[in-house]
Amino acid sequence: MAQRPPDPADPAAGAVTGDALADHLRAQATEFLRALRLHREGGTGAESDDAIRALRRSARRISGSLHTFRPLLDAGWAESVRPELAWLSGTLALEQAYAARLERLLLALHRLSGTPVLPAQAPGPAGSAATERGRLALGAAKAGALLERQLTLARTRAHSATLQTLGGSRFHAVADTVALLASQVPLAPAAAGTDLRPLAAAAEERLATAVTALPLVRAGHPYNAEALVHGLSPDPSPHPQDAPWHQVRLLLRLHRYAREVLHGDDVTDVRLTAAGQALDRHRDASEAAAAAARAARTPRIAPATAYALGVLHADQRHEVEAARYAFQRSWRKQTVGTP
Amino acid sequence: MAQRPPDPADPAAGAVTGDALADHLRAQATEFLRALRLHREGGTGAESDDAIRALRRSARRISGSLHTFRPLLDAGWAESVRPELAWLSGTLALEQAYAARLERLLLALHRLSGTPVLPAQAPGPAGSAATERGRLALGAAKAGALLERQLTLARTRAHSATLQTLGGSRFHAVADTVALLASQVPLAPAAAGTDLRPLAAAAEERLATAVTALPLVRAGHPYNAEALVHGLSPDPSPHPQDAPWHQVRLLLRLHRYAREVLHGDDVTDVRLTAAGQALDRHRDASEAAAAAARAARTPRIAPATAYALGVLHADQRHEVEAARYAFQRSWRKQTVGTP
Repeated sequence: MAQRPPDPADPAAGAVTGDALADHLRAQATEFLRALRLHREGGTGAESDDAIRALRRSARRISGSLHTFRPLLDAGWAESVRPELAWLSGTLALEQAYAARLERLLLALHRLSGTPVLPAQAPGPAGSAATERGRLALGAAKAGALLERQLTLARTRAHSATLQTLGGSRFHAVADTVALLASQVPLAPAAAGTDLRPLAAAAEERLATAVTALPLVRAGHPYNAEALVHGLSPDPSPHPQDAPWHQVRLLLRLHRYAREVLHGDDVTDVRLTAAGQALDRHRDASEAAAAAARAARTPRIAPATAYALGVLHADQRHEVEAARYAFQRSWRKQTVGTP
Repeated sequence: MAQRPPDPADPAAGAVTGDALADHLRAQATEFLRALRLHREGGTGAESDDAIRALRRSARRISGSLHTFRPLLDAGWAESVRPELAWLSGTLALEQAYAARLERLLLALHRLSGTPVLPAQAPGPAGSAATERGRLALGAAKAGALLERQLTLARTRAHSATLQTLGGSRFHAVADTVALLASQVPLAPAAAGTDLRPLAAAAEERLATAVTALPLVRAGHPYNAEALVHGLSPDPSPHPQDAPWHQVRLLLRLHRYAREVLHGDDVTDVRLTAAGQALDRHRDASEAAAAAARAARTPRIAPATAYALGVLHADQRHEVEAARYAFQRSWRKQTVGTP
């Protein structure tokens, strides 16, 4: 386990050194190998999903540490491994992302149709979504069916890609690297005794700088109608305004991982968690809105279907705006609360 | 003019009696007749619009006083005149309402397309809207053209209805009644010396009660997504949730008119004005959203048009929600601010 200073807020507390980084990387590598073993043992769909999630979880943490604490690691090694871990966690994320996107969109269609979905009836990965659609108005039902078709196809493809990935030589090379990492961390010379905290502070600083560039004053005014501007733009990628928020989401994650290396992952900061959840919601809603807009460009759909997709797109863009408002509030609390 | 107590907040100030009501009704009747003369003298479209607006303004105030202070007026007379005034102001309101609705929807389409409309280019009553549409994406442009066609037709019909109304015998009867009112107010026996304030307080009480029934706690939570619930409902009139807000808008107006009778119309309450403007915006956005939804049911429209109308509908429903939030805030200030 990582060293834990008695009080992380006390500047006189002992330094956390490269040894702690090595401990952390070994622990994450071990987690990765355990998840891989679980996945290879097979099991139900849910067990397999959990194993994939655990694989991604440790891949992201290893990759994050390689980025934040790069000066303490063998440079050539870190630079060759990191893109491979990023490729892996990106590839493994797709299947669950499509499933979550479909669920989000179908739940929104229900909300918009005034037919609340009871928890037991929430559209699961199986065929219950079709039953649910029976209770929707025609346009909403057709929009739901179209999204289900498109996102299920995307999900099936992602599932095949996951299986191909996990059976392929590129993945095996990553798994071998991680297996080595579980026993031997390639630290740079003299890194074992070097203080990690300046590098962790630099990660926090990058986050703070990126947050400063966000339009937080505007986001703090409810109903500013910012997120839907360009909602009908002829531009096929009309939402460059989302990019800085996505970037902050990644930097917040790196900051959180660096905190885990320093303080262990039981030192959670609820405000940081809330800010991260708001940015996850921002990303999910942004992508769901884009999926609705793409579905509306399907040739030969009925006007009622297109209308429902338009309402759905706008609804998700307002979710984007709501997420920015939520982030702004949790971040402001954070800044006020930190001495 | 109405009597003005030196300090309206001072309970020891002199009572405002039925005489003040008679003064107020005579003044409003005189305003009505002046506006009617202006309209008959003809003039530009803008002058005619102003005359119609002034006619409605005094008709609403006379009608409001007849309602709030009914016990002080000849009962049979008040009950026969009031529905006629309501019919008149309702009929005269339509033409300007359609024009304002079209302008609101075209401005929203521009905002949603990321093509800001400069003040000089704002779509006026004339043909400039067609030029504006040239800068919109295809779906938005077609949606704009469809709304322009439908609302311009409705407006033209309302214009004819206004002309017919002002030339018809039903209107002449109203005008005769108002002409009599300008010289002689049919007060009930002993009303001249009766205090108006309990009746004005009752109007305020009806407003307060109706506000209490509004879901203000929910409205005070930004992005509650309430206004768009049922946005895709199969029900053709899916927004009964708007009705209590419309009702509060009318009661707020009656309260404001009663204040004018008591204190003169130069004693404006900025918070009351803000609350009233929020409810006007609520009504306008609610009706604009309904117009977009109706346009989307036009047979044989292109999917891109229907999609744009869906986005537009959702956008206006969010305006509805934003207006509720704004009302809640101004009302809360009001309640906190009042001793």
